[in-house]
Amino acid sequence: MIILGIDPGLAIMGYGIIHYEGNHFKTISYGSITTPSSMSTPMRLKKIYDELNGLIIEYNPKVMAIEELFFNTNVKTALLVGQARGVAILAAANNNKEIFEYTPLQVKQGIVGYGRADKVQVQQMVKMLLNLSEIPRPDDAADALAVAICHAHTGNFKNIFKIK
Amino acid sequence: MIILGIDPGLAIMGYGIIHYEGNHFKTISYGSITTPSSMSTPMRLKKIYDELNGLIIEYNPKVMAIEELFFNTNVKTALLVGQARGVAILAAANNNKEIFEYTPLQVKQGIVGYGRADKVQVQQMVKMLLNLSEIPRPDDAADALAVAICHAHTGNFKNIFKIK
Repeated sequence: MIILGIDPGLAIMGYGIIHYEGNHFKTISYGSITTPSSMSTPMRLKKIYDELNGLIIEYNPKVMAIEELFFNTNVKTALLVGQARGVAILAAANNNKEIFEYTPLQVKQGIVGYGRADKVQVQQMVKMLLNLSEIPRPDDAADALAVAICHAHTGNFKNIFKIK
Repeated sequence: MIILGIDPGLAIMGYGIIHYEGNHFKTISYGSITTPSSMSTPMRLKKIYDELNGLIIEYNPKVMAIEELFFNTNVKTALLVGQARGVAILAAANNNKEIFEYTPLQVKQGIVGYGRADKVQVQQMVKMLLNLSEIPRPDDAADALAVAICHAHTGNFKNIFKIK
């Protein structure tokens, strides 16, 4: 199963694409979609949509797993990230992909097994689980891979226990 | 000039389409795009995008004028409305429309000439300026028409004084 993980943002949206089968991970691609603040908001949203749409068509993931926003941010940030997150979700919906959302807490628990794990611990686990020679950069890409791994683990769990 | 006004929201997104020429308004259409909370967020965003895209193709407005979110809302609301607002902006961007944003304060000033005007005063002015027999329902449609009128007034002002 190919999973597309997304760490949403307007200036930088991380993505990570992994293949997961029989408890084995393969890293397919990761990186970030960036939009400069010099661009208008509509053009930034369009760039995010178009590039993400391109990735979905190219790699044809079965599902998209996207991180929920921290609720301890401020209203202005929530609005801006919300807009970017909306077009990311739309790109997956327009390609008929299943979409799953995970809170930062769920991602940490799904990867390190511990909700209070810090960023570095999560990134080290991503590196280890995906058998990478170094921690993926930028952080947003590492976070996106973490969400994808979280979905793989959660989905696997659901499968074993026939939940849902 | 045909102007599409948008009052963004996830459960209900108001729209108002007006024609403005030589200080005269003509109401073309107004209403709302609604999505029930029983739908998944991706499907709600897709419905908003598809219906708004349909309106833009049908009425071919020159510009879209969209209301900015109140910043005195909470983070969760900002995220949800932000997502809906993002796909609305994308629909206009994908159809190569110019997009303008107005704060609630600017809308009130642009219509009633008074930033502290209450909702009813704004709606009465919308009814009067558009020569309607009653105040448009739902409120979201009236608000969307107000944003469109605000853009007409502001655009006209810019034109007269050669600003920008």
